[in-house]
Amino acid sequence: MKIYDRPGFPNPARIRIVLAAKGLDSAVEFVPVDLIGAEHKQPAYLDKNPSGVVPLLELDDGTLISECTAITEYFDHLDGNPILTGRTPKEKAVIHMMQRRAEAYVTDAVGLYFHYATPGLGAVLQPYKSPEWDGRTVMGQREGEKVRIGMRYFDDLLSSRSYLAGEDFSMADITLFAGLMHADVSGITVPADHMALQAWRDRVSQLPCVRGRSGQAFMPEDLKRLGF
Amino acid sequence: MKIYDRPGFPNPARIRIVLAAKGLDSAVEFVPVDLIGAEHKQPAYLDKNPSGVVPLLELDDGTLISECTAITEYFDHLDGNPILTGRTPKEKAVIHMMQRRAEAYVTDAVGLYFHYATPGLGAVLQPYKSPEWDGRTVMGQREGEKVRIGMRYFDDLLSSRSYLAGEDFSMADITLFAGLMHADVSGITVPADHMALQAWRDRVSQLPCVRGRSGQAFMPEDLKRLGF
Repeated sequence: MKIYDRPGFPNPARIRIVLAAKGLDSAVEFVPVDLIGAEHKQPAYLDKNPSGVVPLLELDDGTLISECTAITEYFDHLDGNPILTGRTPKEKAVIHMMQRRAEAYVTDAVGLYFHYATPGLGAVLQPYKSPEWDGRTVMGQREGEKVRIGMRYFDDLLSSRSYLAGEDFSMADITLFAGLMHADVSGITVPADHMALQAWRDRVSQLPCVRGRSGQAFMPEDLKRLGF
Repeated sequence: MKIYDRPGFPNPARIRIVLAAKGLDSAVEFVPVDLIGAEHKQPAYLDKNPSGVVPLLELDDGTLISECTAITEYFDHLDGNPILTGRTPKEKAVIHMMQRRAEAYVTDAVGLYFHYATPGLGAVLQPYKSPEWDGRTVMGQREGEKVRIGMRYFDDLLSSRSYLAGEDFSMADITLFAGLMHADVSGITVPADHMALQAWRDRVSQLPCVRGRSGQAFMPEDLKRLGF
């Protein structure tokens, strides 16, 4: 199996944590995609994934799977023990609900803020991000505000449970965790009074499948190209 | 179990088709939500679903499940035979990928077009749809363009397979089908040269779980309130 991605970026980080949680790190060959050079917006990549995003999973039979939820469903069911996506109908339902909320309220919203209200990944990618549209920065700022509201929602939720879907770690926690990594580098940090969210984040960062990955926001050469 | 929704609206239609496909129509009590009166944006409803959308499933133990994918996962697994969400890891992966694409490319994009670039559900709901933001109509129009591109993508895809995820009907087909119902009433119709998409739509509309539901776009009293 191959995964097309770039280490340190938020959605690739989600699937790398999934692989670690399932003991599948060595089952996959990683193929680097030059996101800063907009390789994912060129025809060769769009043929594989018309959504133009990473990560992308290619199975040995050539089947292409995009979208983090779909890739997670695949890896989580390979051993018949779906610890990340739920074992009972109710577990599956709550986890998928929280997965969508983590994406919509934080992770996807941070992505829009990053690409539309900040310099994002720089000049090469800009032409693919609607620079002709006057409303783009306002839209990006609105998404940033959504992230702040989302952080409050999850802080409140986590004041009465250990993880997003209850007492067990799931794919929804991975999604929010990666979203907060991206929020950090985008300049939207978790407010100091969000104690429950911060405690959850500390707890997640200590899990064996996450530890060592939490500081991995962008590779050094990427940061250099981005002007950091 | 209870479902809070409004018959004829696109996302409620998705779950009503799921219930029919699983033989669960009579297992659920429907609680009407006045969408045109913005009942779903008031505190009593937001307490149940902070996303402020329908449908919402309430289990007998009080657990609240929002998001169509999550609700579908629940109903599809109750009998241990997940015909709509996939039985093998690969089936699950392809179905979830196509579910996200159907939502992102068409169903969610139609919703944004409908609410931001047309009069949508009318005056009462408008204050909850960012009327202060100058860029909203432009954003809505951009989403409408996304729908047209999405229709082309699915037309191309369906020229070489019977259903979105392959040869079997799945939740992704339900999602796209409901999205096209909403596109019709929003004024974005499937172009006449999209033969494969149209043939798929005819095929889906004849399935026992769908038949009789396809013309159900809005209740007569809702259409009257909307000025049709």
